[in-house]
This record gives sequence, structure tokens and C-alpha cells, in this order.
Amino acid sequence: MPTILGQNQYGKAENRVVKITRDGATHHIKDLNVSVSLSGDMDEVHYSGSNANVLPTDTTKNTVYAFAKEHGIESAEQFGIHLARHFVTSQEPIRTARIRIEEYSWERIETSGEAGHSFVRKGQETRLAQITFDGERWEVVSGLKDLVVMNSTDSEFWGYVKDKYTTLQEAHDRILATQVSGRWRFNWTDDEQEMPHWDESYEQTKKHMLQAFAETYSLSLQQTLYQMGARIIDNRSEIDEVRFSLPNKHHFLVDLEPFGLKNDNEVYFAADRPYGLIEGTILRDGCEARIPVDLTNL
Amino acid sequence: MPTILGQNQYGKAENRVVKITRDGATHHIKDLNVSVSLSGDMDEVHYSGSNANVLPTDTTKNTVYAFAKEHGIESAEQFGIHLARHFVTSQEPIRTARIRIEEYSWERIETSGEAGHSFVRKGQETRLAQITFDGERWEVVSGLKDLVVMNSTDSEFWGYVKDKYTTLQEAHDRILATQVSGRWRFNWTDDEQEMPHWDESYEQTKKHMLQAFAETYSLSLQQTLYQMGARIIDNRSEIDEVRFSLPNKHHFLVDLEPFGLKNDNEVYFAADRPYGLIEGTILRDGCEARIPVDLTNL
Amino acid sequence: MPTILGQNQYGKAENRVVKITRDGATHHIKDLNVSVSLSGDMDEVHYSGSNANVLPTDTTKNTVYAFAKEHGIESAEQFGIHLARHFVTSQEPIRTARIRIEEYSWERIETSGEAGHSFVRKGQETRLAQITFDGERWEVVSGLKDLVVMNSTDSEFWGYVKDKYTTLQEAHDRILATQVSGRWRFNWTDDEQEMPHWDESYEQTKKHMLQAFAETYSLSLQQTLYQMGARIIDNRSEIDEVRFSLPNKHHFLVDLEPFGLKNDNEVYFAADRPYGLIEGTILRDGCEARIPVDLTNL
Amino acid sequence: MPTILGQNQYGKAENRVVKITRDGATHHIKDLNVSVSLSGDMDEVHYSGSNANVLPTDTTKNTVYAFAKEHGIESAEQFGIHLARHFVTSQEPIRTARIRIEEYSWERIETSGEAGHSFVRKGQETRLAQITFDGERWEVVSGLKDLVVMNSTDSEFWGYVKDKYTTLQEAHDRILATQVSGRWRFNWTDDEQEMPHWDESYEQTKKHMLQAFAETYSLSLQQTLYQMGARIIDNRSEIDEVRFSLPNKHHFLVDLEPFGLKNDNEVYFAADRPYGLIEGTILRDGCEARIPVDLTNL
Repeated sequence: MPTILGQNQYGKAENRVVKITRDGATHHIKDLNVSVSLSGDMDEVHYSGSNANVLPTDTTKNTVYAFAKEHGIESAEQFGIHLARHFVTSQEPIRTARIRIEEYSWERIETSGEAGHSFVRKGQETRLAQITFDGERWEVVSGLKDLVVMNSTDSEFWGYVKDKYTTLQEAHDRILATQVSGRWRFNWTDDEQEMPHWDESYEQTKKHMLQAFAETYSLSLQQTLYQMGARIIDNRSEIDEVRFSLPNKHHFLVDLEPFGLKNDNEVYFAADRPYGLIEGTILRDGCEARIPVDLTNL
Repeated sequence: MPTILGQNQYGKAENRVVKITRDGATHHIKDLNVSVSLSGDMDEVHYSGSNANVLPTDTTKNTVYAFAKEHGIESAEQFGIHLARHFVTSQEPIRTARIRIEEYSWERIETSGEAGHSFVRKGQETRLAQITFDGERWEVVSGLKDLVVMNSTDSEFWGYVKDKYTTLQEAHDRILATQVSGRWRFNWTDDEQEMPHWDESYEQTKKHMLQAFAETYSLSLQQTLYQMGARIIDNRSEIDEVRFSLPNKHHFLVDLEPFGLKNDNEVYFAADRPYGLIEGTILRDGCEARIPVDLTNL
Repeated sequence: MPTILGQNQYGKAENRVVKITRDGATHHIKDLNVSVSLSGDMDEVHYSGSNANVLPTDTTKNTVYAFAKEHGIESAEQFGIHLARHFVTSQEPIRTARIRIEEYSWERIETSGEAGHSFVRKGQETRLAQITFDGERWEVVSGLKDLVVMNSTDSEFWGYVKDKYTTLQEAHDRILATQVSGRWRFNWTDDEQEMPHWDESYEQTKKHMLQAFAETYSLSLQQTLYQMGARIIDNRSEIDEVRFSLPNKHHFLVDLEPFGLKNDNEVYFAADRPYGLIEGTILRDGCEARIPVDLTNL
Repeated sequence: MPTILGQNQYGKAENRVVKITRDGATHHIKDLNVSVSLSGDMDEVHYSGSNANVLPTDTTKNTVYAFAKEHGIESAEQFGIHLARHFVTSQEPIRTARIRIEEYSWERIETSGEAGHSFVRKGQETRLAQITFDGERWEVVSGLKDLVVMNSTDSEFWGYVKDKYTTLQEAHDRILATQVSGRWRFNWTDDEQEMPHWDESYEQTKKHMLQAFAETYSLSLQQTLYQMGARIIDNRSEIDEVRFSLPNKHHFLVDLEPFGLKNDNEVYFAADRPYGLIEGTILRDGCEARIPVDLTNL
């Protein structure tokens, strides 16, 4: 046969698990979307259809729900570590497990009484975690998507290359807006190392990223991207690599002159497509890049 | 000709306008999606294609942007009132104008310095406003969509009809979750009346609605729906009618017994489809219902 | 109590049912998304939470699946008629049932052998049916959505009103493109009448609509809309009313002059938002309009 | 500085270009969504914000539209080759260009007359092409997404691993359905080689893939995946590597026994989430895998 099998992986994707923890009348909520991806000695199921080495995707789903009870959900990363370790250590043919998790956050509804059991979904970014384990080495990449940010000034764009297809006018005061998709890789790789405090790390990383976006006087979105990553590397010693995919969500100044009006950076048209797409990796010096290049598929 | 023309309307939909107001170094942002719908003496354009009575949809778009400069955007409702009045009073063939607006809210990014020009999109509900004017009477319907809420206890469902297709077990402690789509109609209809304070009305209405959701011990989602509407009518004298479309976002208790585990209302599967869909109108006694029955299309 | 309950309805939405019928080795497939909406004597469940009159939405879901077996799925409309009749006639408190159905069509995959059991989803429009029954009178509204069509010529737009906000240039040869959302109401209302042949009616109605779109030399999208509706009324005696919601999917001629190129109606930018939105009803003379004005929510 | 810049790329994404070619009264249409991604000597724009090496994303957009006129759009792949060559050869700092294209296909509307200018969007799969050029070597990866297929029989699943979390029952006759996302890499890498006929290659590859899906008696989705890839490699000498991401779109047999009905593989519930996700690469023997592992982000 002139064809051979290359990399392959399988599992149950998008298991929606909600865990309620009751601390007396005060409830706590964890709301995750968990995807399991397993690989290993799986040639035969591809060649002949023999499932002798295949743990069903349905079983991986059951395991997600059972582990929410058995281990609780301390954080998305910790939950993924429990799952990945289980699949790799309990099934001989499975050599590598990768767990991807989306997390949705909730706020409490303020009420006149106690009401520790009422929540409204925060609705801002989706938190992301990816945990990979090959039996020896851990790789944890956390991140977020769909965090929309804007600076209404302190952004310029000029001094660029002009070729025969260039018509863009230089801008010395523009809106800079983007929908952040980011991933950051931890240098925790071994059970012997002290594990990061995942939730605190996430909150601090998001804070530094937002502040860098806000505080950078920007001559290009690339410059802002780099500052956002560098600020994280500088402040969070547990993180060695950051990658961003930043669509430049164009806000075009509307030409109001035909109506006898002057638009003094006040009225903008928020465009959908096309958009600039700026992507880049920032590394701690001496570290290797491991986060894949394309965070989205366009 | 055996066919005739019935109701018709036209305009430019989804004009994305962002307005920046500069108060020194502190900027303010309004972010709207404005849809214009005009009707009136439009038979001829349908029958013969004569555009003699047709103000182009492109012009209605231009008007949205020009008015953002000329009138500012005090609130979505006030902005819609300016637009609707303009179309009906400036063009003889146009008898009715309806403006629909979606509004997205933004929060300030906290920084070490001043930075009054950096924002992150809040991402929670989308605020809605619909303003209709026929030259004499105003109808303002405000609302919201995509506000996801959950009570992790204080919800039951039992005592229902059982027919030959009923298999559901009664529940005495369940999660109640929904994605609120709501509309409320103001009793302001005339320029002679004092106009409501639109932004304060919105904030208070949302607060009462959330509190009613949180504080109602629920025997059915219908009961909760009614309480949410009644709380608004009771507290907001400017509102005469409320309608909700509430999908019952099912959270099913996962059966962990096959794994030797007891699920004491802790681990849930959050289902997508199908979902219960509960819809209803709550009216101030003596008032007429005017909000259409179907807020969504399923 | 100063508040009262207005119109209300409830049921299970988006029940995804796939029915396979085996005709020897040749299989047939029906793929539906069924939403049930019931109303009637439901005051008490809103006021006190008593479910004594409430058939659970879970039961309405079960009924959909059971009826797929008991009655088969001859057509979306016929299936909806079975369901609506059942709910109204079997439960005293239920006075009206409305069934909404989306249908997805599939084509056979051509193979070298027989293979009457392999399908690829067609992916074009979604077929729609809405069946309402109050115990006496039927109302059937069929339709479709997401059918994208384009004429690359034979469309003009000029002679329109020009006010101070008008900047649009007149066009004497433009692309006309839209994503058709249409509904049509049948004059079958009574079990005593002969029932239409639903599938044939759908195929013929779609054909006439497409041909009217293609064959109309268009001076405005309103004119095309009217012709599409009139063609249906003229050719299909079972239909008395048609309503369309037609977004004008703008294709803007790109200005290539800065690059020394002439754009002779060749290269277009397909815009997303904003878009013109043209909506209208076409009636058989003497008939009443009953299809709601807004087919979409923008 | 403790941080350094890693891989980075930028350009304008999602340029929607529609090209009409007029062959007398018969028009032809190409409808593309083109994304440009450039990389090279771009350190300075990240570190200092200097745009001296940056061709604006706006210019890359203009180039897409200008090239649609200058070169026409023979196929998505050929169009991408023109663009990639241009960016790399015309701008010294740009070392690599990657063009990603989505293509939407259209069918003619049948009319009584000629009407060679009326189209309806086919709506089935989205065709994909990715062209990468580094000044010397070409890499072309074509593919498709959102092609939904189903076998209503000839699929089994049994003989799998059973652990303490396994509850799944073995199945000897089930529905197998998936939404195909596939990519295939051409062995054309050099201008000296004869270029494949891109459109014919696409049509034949899709045909072989669909036939392999239909004709494989399946003991696992992995087996079907491998057959789909092997069939392409066996029949298309221009292709060396294929990768698929195949969600197992579960169709669960509904338990109708509570209603006294027997479900003889007739009535199914089509589930949304979770779903099995089966991914794998098939290679011509001796060839290297170059298509990234994750075609989607879950």
C-alpha cells in the first residue's frame, strides 16, 4: 500500500460541565467546556477498524463528569492535569493526552437578602487552558479569546512603505481596537516543580496585558502586541512564551464634509471585514517557541 | 392584476456607529448598531420600479452618521427619536419611521496613570431600543438580549400533567438557567409628556429584573417570568408592558452511579438543544399589549 | 395586583429529529428541527407556579419523536399538522398549538455501486413550515431562509429622492444580490378542504420565486420583491399571501483608477454591513394579511 | 532586554472579492474571501513602532482587488500564486507570503429565456486554498470545510476498550455522520514543475473522498477517515498528504419503548455537543507531513 498513517488523535470534544460547590447557603460555580484528545498506538483502528486499543470517546466524556465529582474543579488547568494524567497512565496504548478547556465566568447577582446562589454570566472573554502530557513532561498553555479592547487616542500609523497599490493616508490620531486572542506557555513541565497558582496567574496576566494595551502610545499594532507580551514575560516568571492574534478592528472616521460638518475624531464607522491581522510570539530570552503559529483559521 | 401590495418597509440596517466624546483627557464612548425602517407612500416603487418617493437607504445611513455629530448620542432612545422625527417630518411620502438600536457597553481599563481613553467591552447583555413615530404618536420599546442568568437552587418542577408520552421525573431541587430576551414599552407617547430618563430607566429595570429572578423561589419558569415582569411594572411607572422570551437552558444532573459515585446536585451537563421556551407578556392593568409575540424566530 | 398576564406560550424548541425510511437497500431521509409552542388556560402557572395545567416541555419533545415513528414524516407540514392536532385535542387546557419546523435537505452521493444509504447535505436554503391550530381553524405558513441569489446585470437604481444627506451616485448597471427570507400562507384552513400537496407546492413556489428574481429587469429591489411575490400568487392557487425580507447585499464596484486600471463592472467588494433591508407583503386581491411584519429581528 | 520576538506575520484578512467575467450575455462568477499574511524583516516595527519595512495591510487589500482585474481569477490557487509571488518579489523586507482563500460556489438559475447572469449560491462546502511562497519554494494546500455527509447504515462500533468509566453499548448498525474538514498538499513546489489543473484536481479529489466515505463499510470513523485519505493519494498523483478533522456527529437512536413503540433504526436524535472528534494525516509513503495538526480550534 503506497499510503501510510501520520499524526492522529481522537476524543470527545466540547463536554459542557457545570460544577456547583455548596458552602452552606453560598454556592460557587465552575462552568467549563472540555475537549479530550488522545493519541498513541492507534494504527490498527485506522487500517482495519479494530477498536482493540480504542477507549471510546463516550468513555472520555464520562470521565470528565466523574472527575468533576472525584477531584472537584479547582481551576481549569488543575482539572485538565487530573484528566491528562489519568488517560496516559491508565491505558497502555495511549501515549499522549491533550485536554483543551474553555471557561466562562459568572458574577453574583446583588440582592436585598443573602442569595448566594444567583449568578449572571460575566460575558467578557473566554478563558482557555490546554494541558498536554506524554507520561513524562507537562505542557500547559493558558490564554483567552474574545476580549475586545479599544484606545480612543494615542495611536498613530505613518512612515510605512508606499508602492503602486498604496492609497492609505497617514494617521496621527486614530482609534486602535482589537479582539484579543492570546496564549501563554508556562515553564512548569514536571511534577517535581512547584505548580503555579493557576487562577492568580490568569488574573495577573490579564491585568498586565490590559495595562500594557492601555499604556502603550502606539505607532503600530505590532508595537502594542510586543509590549503586551513583554509586560507579561517581565512580570510573570512562570510564563516563558506568549502569542497573540490581534485583528485590527478598523474604526474609520466618517467623512461628514458633504453635509457641511467637521468630524474632529468623533464619529466612526466600525467595520467588520476586511481587518488587519497581526500575529506574533514574544519569548523569554533563551526559550524555545512551542505555541503553534495560527491561533485562528483565517 | 389579481395581487396587491400589503405592508412594506425599507431602510439601511446595521449601521455601526461609534461616537467618542472628549472631556479633556477623559473620553466617553457610545457604540451602537442602528437599523432604519421607513414606510409610507411606496406603492409605485413596488409596482413600476419608480424611485420618485424613495429616499435611498444609503442616505438613511449617512443621516445616522451625520446625526451622531449634529445631535450627539445622549442615549440610544434619544438618538432614535432624533432620527425618526427627521425622516417623518422631512420627507412627505414617509409616514412612519422605526429605528432599532443595539448598544454595546464598555468599561474603563484600570491603569496606573490617568488613561481615560482605554476601554474593554463589557460583553454582557446587548441593550436594545426601538423607536417608532408616525408623525403624531411615539412608541418606545427598550429591552435587552443575551443576558445569561442562573439560580443553582430554589427551583422545583412537579405536579404537572402526565400523559402517555410523559417520562420526566419530578424535581424538587434543580438548576434554573435562562438567556433573557426582554422588551418593555414606555407610556411616553407624546412630545407634550415629560420624557423618561432613558439610561437610568434601563439600569433600574435591569436591576429589578435580575433581583426578581434571584429572589423568586421558583415552581416553574413561567412563575419566575411573571415575577420578573411584575417587579418591573411595580417599580417603574414609565413602563406599561413587558415581554420576555426565556429559553430554559437545561442543566441535567449527570448520573454518576455507574461509577460508584453519588451526585448530590453537584455535577451537571449543560445542554444546548432542545430547550424549553417560555414566553409571556406582563401588563399594567388596563393597558393594551403592543409588543409582538415572537421576540425570536424559533 | 396592578399587573396582569397577557399572551403567553410555551413548549420545547429545536427538537432535532432525523427519520430514516428503508425501502430495501434504498434509504430515505427526513431531517427536521421542530419547535412546539402551546397556549391556553395557563394563568395559574404564572401567578402561583401551579403546574396542574402544564404538559411538560419534555413531554412535547417525546411526542415529536414518538410521532416520527407513529405517523412517519411525509412532509414538514403534514408532520406539524399531526402534532398540532394532538396537543389541542388531547389536553383540555391547551387551546392553541403552533409547530415551527426547519427542514434540511440531503442529496445522494453518487457511487460506483448501489449505495442507497449515503448522503451529502445539500446546504442551500433551509425550508420552513409553521402550523397553527386552535381546534377549529388551521393556518399553514411555509417558507425558506438563507437562499442567496445574485443577478450580475439587469439592475439599475436612479431617480430617487435627494436630500442634504444624499451622496449616492445613480447606477445604471449594478449587481443585485440578496439572501431571501420568505414566507407564504396557504388558503387551506379546514379539514374539510382538500389539503395541498406540500412538497410539490414547495418545489414549485421556490422555482417561480427564483425565476421571477432572474427574469425581472430591476429598477429597485422593491420591484423585484413584488414580482417574486406576484409570480407565486399568480401560479399557485393554494397560496394567498407572501412576505419577503430581502437584505440588499451590496456589491460595491472597486475604484481601480488609482492603480491605472479601468473597472468595467468586473471587480466588486462584497460588503457585510450595513445593508439595505427591503420587506414587503404581496396579497391575493381580497385576502387579509396575517404573516407578521418582521421575519428577522433587525 | 529579557524578551525577544519570535515568529510573526501580518496582513489584511477576509478581503471579499467577487469577479464577474462577461462572455457575451453569459456571465461567470468567482466569489472569494482572501486573507494575506506576510512575514520577513519585521523586528523594528515590533520593538520601536517604526513602519519603515511595513507595507500597509490596506495596500495588501488593494492588491487583491487590483490583481482580480490584472490577472483575473482562473482558480483560487492560481490567484493566490500571483499574489504571493508579488509580495515576496516586490518588497525586499518580505521573505514569505501566505495567501489563504475561501471560495463559495454558485449555480445558474434555470429560466425560460437565456438569463446567463442569474445565480443561486450552492451553499454546500466552502472550498479552501492556502498558497505559501518564500521566494524559492511553493507550498499549496487545498481543502474544504463544512461538507456534511451521512451513511444511514453500514457502520458498526464494538470491540473497544472498557474501563470503569465505560457505559457505551456496542452498536452493530448505526448512523455515521460527519462534517468534513479536509486539507491536501500538492507536490508542486517549483515553478519548473508542471502546475496541476487546480479546478479539475479539486472536483476529482472531492469526488473520490465522497465515494470513499460512501463505499467504506465502517467499523470506526478512524477507518473511514483513513480510507478517504488513501483513496485520494491513490488516485491523485499531484497530492502527497491529506489531513482530516472529522467530528462524529452523533445520531442517537431514541428510546421509544416507554411509549410502547419499537424503534427499528428509524428515529434518531441529532445531537450537537459533545461530539467525537477524529483527526488524522494520510501520507504518500516516503513523504513528509507538513499540514498542521489542528485544523480547528477545539
